[in-house]
Amino acid sequence: MKHVHYTDIEAEIPDVDGLKDVTIRWLITKKDGAKNFTMRLFEVQPGGYTPSHQHDWEHEVFIVKGSGELRDKDSAYPFKVGDVVYVHPMEWHQFVNTGDDILQFICVIPYQS
Amino acid sequence: MKHVHYTDIEAEIPDVDGLKDVTIRWLITKKDGAKNFTMRLFEVQPGGYTPSHQHDWEHEVFIVKGSGELRDKDSAYPFKVGDVVYVHPMEWHQFVNTGDDILQFICVIPYQS
Repeated sequence: MKHVHYTDIEAEIPDVDGLKDVTIRWLITKKDGAKNFTMRLFEVQPGGYTPSHQHDWEHEVFIVKGSGELRDKDSAYPFKVGDVVYVHPMEWHQFVNTGDDILQFICVIPYQS
Repeated sequence: MKHVHYTDIEAEIPDVDGLKDVTIRWLITKKDGAKNFTMRLFEVQPGGYTPSHQHDWEHEVFIVKGSGELRDKDSAYPFKVGDVVYVHPMEWHQFVNTGDDILQFICVIPYQS
C-alpha cells in the first residue's frame, strides 16, 4: 500500500493556460500502480481560478476545504465544503475561489485506455 | 453537471459481513453517467471498522475527517486527516476508527470493464 500525507507530495503549477494561483498535487498515479484513474488535489488561493475549459474526459470532484463558484459558459453555481461535483466529458467548467480561505478539492480523472 | 452536498445522498449500510458502525454514500455512479469509476464516502463511528478483506480491484482513498488505523494482515498503520492511501488489487486492508470523532474518507473504485 501507498500511504502518505498530501503535503508529502509536491504542489506543482499545472501546465495549462488560463489559470490563476492554482497548484496540483498528483496524489495517486500510474507510478503507484494505479492503472485506471488518478487522484489529484487542487489548491486555489483566494481570487484564483482554474481554466474555463472543456475536454473529453470526466471529473469526479469532492470539495475538501473552502468555497467558491463552479462556472460553465453561462452560469455560476456556489459550492462549499462537502459538495460533490460530476463534470461530464465535454462540459465547460471552471472552479473559482470566491472565498477568503484556500480552496482545496479532490479531482479524479480516468487514464485513457 | 451533477452538483450536490454529500448529505443529500443517502447513507446506506454496506451489504458485506465483518463491519461495525459503517455507512457508505455513493456520491457519483453510473446513474450520473460515470462509466469508468465511482466515488463513495465512508463514515465510520468511533470504535467501528470496515471489513478486513481483499478483492481484485484497487482503492484510491483520501481521509476527510477523523483518524484511525489502516490494518493489513500483520500490521496497523495510523492515519489522520489529509492522508492518502492507495490499496493495490488483492491487498488485505481494513479501516478502523480508533479516534473519538467520526471518521470520513473518500474511496474511489473502478467499474469493471
